[in-house]
Amino acid sequence: MSSKRLIYLPLGGAGEIGMNCYVYGYGEEGKERLILVDLGVTFPDMDGTPGVDLILPDISWLEARRNQLDAIFITHAHEDHVGAVGHLYEKLGAPIYARAFTANIARGKMAEYGFPDKAVKVVSKWPDTTKAGPFTVGFLPISHSIPESSALVIDTPDGRVIHTGDFKLDETPVVGEAFDPVLWAEVAKPGVKALVCDSTNIFSPVAGRSEISVGPEIESLVAEAKGMVVATTFASNVARVRTLAEAGERAGRSICLMGRAMRRMVEASTETGVLTSFPRVISPEDARELPRDNVMLLVTGSQGERRAASAQLANGKYNGITMKEGDLFLFSSKTIPGNERGVIRIMNQFSEMGVDVVDDAGGRYHVSGHANRPDIIAMHKLVKPQIVVPMHGEHRHLREHVKVAKSNKFQSIVAVNGMIVNLSGNKPTVAGYVETGRTYLDGSVQIGAMDGVVRDRIRMALNGHVLVTVIMDEANEPLGEPWCELRGLAETGRSRSPLIDVLEEDLSQFMGRAGARTLADDDKLEDGLRKIVRQSAQTEIGKKPEVTVVISRLVS
Amino acid sequence: MSSKRLIYLPLGGAGEIGMNCYVYGYGEEGKERLILVDLGVTFPDMDGTPGVDLILPDISWLEARRNQLDAIFITHAHEDHVGAVGHLYEKLGAPIYARAFTANIARGKMAEYGFPDKAVKVVSKWPDTTKAGPFTVGFLPISHSIPESSALVIDTPDGRVIHTGDFKLDETPVVGEAFDPVLWAEVAKPGVKALVCDSTNIFSPVAGRSEISVGPEIESLVAEAKGMVVATTFASNVARVRTLAEAGERAGRSICLMGRAMRRMVEASTETGVLTSFPRVISPEDARELPRDNVMLLVTGSQGERRAASAQLANGKYNGITMKEGDLFLFSSKTIPGNERGVIRIMNQFSEMGVDVVDDAGGRYHVSGHANRPDIIAMHKLVKPQIVVPMHGEHRHLREHVKVAKSNKFQSIVAVNGMIVNLSGNKPTVAGYVETGRTYLDGSVQIGAMDGVVRDRIRMALNGHVLVTVIMDEANEPLGEPWCELRGLAETGRSRSPLIDVLEEDLSQFMGRAGARTLADDDKLEDGLRKIVRQSAQTEIGKKPEVTVVISRLVS
Repeated sequence: MSSKRLIYLPLGGAGEIGMNCYVYGYGEEGKERLILVDLGVTFPDMDGTPGVDLILPDISWLEARRNQLDAIFITHAHEDHVGAVGHLYEKLGAPIYARAFTANIARGKMAEYGFPDKAVKVVSKWPDTTKAGPFTVGFLPISHSIPESSALVIDTPDGRVIHTGDFKLDETPVVGEAFDPVLWAEVAKPGVKALVCDSTNIFSPVAGRSEISVGPEIESLVAEAKGMVVATTFASNVARVRTLAEAGERAGRSICLMGRAMRRMVEASTETGVLTSFPRVISPEDARELPRDNVMLLVTGSQGERRAASAQLANGKYNGITMKEGDLFLFSSKTIPGNERGVIRIMNQFSEMGVDVVDDAGGRYHVSGHANRPDIIAMHKLVKPQIVVPMHGEHRHLREHVKVAKSNKFQSIVAVNGMIVNLSGNKPTVAGYVETGRTYLDGSVQIGAMDGVVRDRIRMALNGHVLVTVIMDEANEPLGEPWCELRGLAETGRSRSPLIDVLEEDLSQFMGRAGARTLADDDKLEDGLRKIVRQSAQTEIGKKPEVTVVISRLVS
Repeated sequence: MSSKRLIYLPLGGAGEIGMNCYVYGYGEEGKERLILVDLGVTFPDMDGTPGVDLILPDISWLEARRNQLDAIFITHAHEDHVGAVGHLYEKLGAPIYARAFTANIARGKMAEYGFPDKAVKVVSKWPDTTKAGPFTVGFLPISHSIPESSALVIDTPDGRVIHTGDFKLDETPVVGEAFDPVLWAEVAKPGVKALVCDSTNIFSPVAGRSEISVGPEIESLVAEAKGMVVATTFASNVARVRTLAEAGERAGRSICLMGRAMRRMVEASTETGVLTSFPRVISPEDARELPRDNVMLLVTGSQGERRAASAQLANGKYNGITMKEGDLFLFSSKTIPGNERGVIRIMNQFSEMGVDVVDDAGGRYHVSGHANRPDIIAMHKLVKPQIVVPMHGEHRHLREHVKVAKSNKFQSIVAVNGMIVNLSGNKPTVAGYVETGRTYLDGSVQIGAMDGVVRDRIRMALNGHVLVTVIMDEANEPLGEPWCELRGLAETGRSRSPLIDVLEEDLSQFMGRAGARTLADDDKLEDGLRKIVRQSAQTEIGKKPEVTVVISRLVS
């Protein structure tokens, strides 16, 4: 038996939905040649990552092995698959391969960091393939909710791996390539070692619906609308954007795209030939001049993002356009768990304006881009792999997907971020663990999730912050009284005196009774002052704030 | 026509789900005698209210008129109806009326502030009534998801008002009084001026199901379970708690209640005779000794609350009990919008332990406590009021409820927090607005939502915090260099030098070139230093932090 092995190592996406980043390797242990599939981001939230701009996978393991890395393949242009290419390219350097539309988006991201277009190579779909070390990789079209989504057919010395990327089984996807079961059966026919498979909708019990099914519903909704119609969806769902636009056009409305991503996606899909027809689009300036019932806006912000067009319209105005009583706002989208508050905020703002909001509660105006449980099972049965490796899911999705695979007699394994899985033998085995995690893009800087920066922010947000300043003279005696500044704390508490006065008084008393040894020792003094602030604040306002102490010592 | 009028003024609950607080008044303008219906809380979140413990209605308007307030009536014992009685009683002082179970819970809250039991008066259900100024108020039983929920029949000189409180139309509620349509029809028969009506589920299109429907589903789930079974629901849903416990008992399991609220609610409902039978309960110590398949735990924390029993079990251990592979965890509850992240976190933690998690995705193990759209319409038709006033809803719920009411030819009005509605005339009119809002319980202190305290916390969480200290001598010359402390900021940025060094260097340079006039003027100096920090940090790390400047001036 060869001492070489085929390994699979998720660095992101296996234990979360988002931030996809999967390593495949082949070779002797520790000397594997590597390829990377997808390099995505996930999004911060106030709960756990306040102030953070974007969350990237921690690729330290891969960076340390960059000379083993032969290529990066991007399955499709969603942010959670391509979003980190610009931010992390410097650490990896390997060529990026993608199909035309995906490459168009990836190049935009690379350009923000000054990387040239040629770093991203455009490849054609299967049966074309790309050699990368011991791997031969082909892009096999699959339907999803963005054009040119592809599974990867990864041929290795130990057999064929199919990495589905995100997918659904849609034979009428409106824009882009339909799922082609005949082609897929053909690709699977020689035998498939492992199917690395999307798990997102494993808990959805009913087979998914085609993109084409929402068209008639949207069309009749728009046809009956009286005032202005505004619709939002993911900008990257070009099929949906076209469906919406065509519904508007058929109802005699002029279409206006609002929000940078919306224009960018229509532009990219037109440039790359993915979108061959689209209704004529007018500018916001022109839209303002038309009667309200002749206009339909397609806007960004289906997830309630604060800066997106939908949120700005809800706040009152965007590009000079204001919504009014009798207008219609359509969420042709579902709310991703965690974004409910933002979406509900917008709905209520529109309600206050008298705008009728239609969402997807009834399933009429949106279909998911991911395979549901029966579709996932159908995929297993079509590909008939030796091993099913669930990916693109939280732990509960992966675990459920493994159960489903095993109940259909496939080998399977819950492979989480950081787990090296050896796919070479008769059954998948855990070959080790590597450290993984998250890197935060914070302003213009990348910081580690465990650096404590964000932890400190959360603590200030929960507890408030007290700054204490004392000045010590040359003889280690206090010069004047300790001084406090408060941020994020109640002004008065139990004693009804200003909190700041109470704290300063208690600190003064402490300084008065502190011995020479404490006064001469910065650490002791700081500890003492901190303790006083926390005790005193606890008594006054029932909270123990964060405390920063600055001791200045005058030297002669 | 009398110059007296009947007014309705929501101070909370009309523009949100939660924090219920409704004023009714009768009398000459400005001299109305007042009653208050419900005094509830809502819950903080990291997004908008970090560090806050509880959110209370701002009752300043009512506090200023406390001598006009004759009584406080509490419809039922949910936190969003009774949660603020202890915190706000001092400001109001009027007698509180509630039925026995609700009073039991209210008294517990009052006791925390040292108020005596007698401040809460126990009343019997309709046809008993209580006089309060010009009002006569009766507690008309209605089904909901907590025992003894009651609508209020408020008789006024201008007619009868029915305030539904939270309700559903459940004729088989398992615990507590069934909805009695005959009794309700009788109460409505003399004619009803206004129906002030729960709007929570106005967007749910299908008639609600009875509490009794979940029993058989829960029973078969528990009967088939192999390992330990743990179930969570709202502790106050005593009917559900009993259904769960009985399912466990029938499956030969001993029942253990975990979490303070769970024990408190079963205790209160037993004490007040609401709960006449409940399986024998064992202690956590005893539960630990039993075989896993002989135990069922009923735990708090259905919303993923970090300190509740469910979260602690998910973290590893609670009361000495650890969940294991093959155990079952049941969410017999729905996730309230905004709580998804916490609930999903727990689900994934259990998944990692190998615990099977069953939630209510299929609607089998939970029913709502609120009337759905058809039930709300049925209520309108049963009561046949002159006016329908939607309450207990976000703006979108209130607006939709008004549409529904008007489509059935009832007069109706979107009455939001702070709006005084005159109900006396032929149709409801807006008689004015009062300032309302939210009060935060923060530690042991009540602070205003607009005080800026929480805003400052959010800013520190988003931007980090830089403290700058400078010492000026007697001649207004800097003594030493400016000093920085950083909290919640990246350590290094673009220049790869420590950020603190870059900031201190830039601040030093600023001090060096600052003129005497700037150095002598605290405001100018502070402004200058702040500006330097923000510019310099923007260049280095792409963020503008919050800055606190402390200038110490030595005096001779």
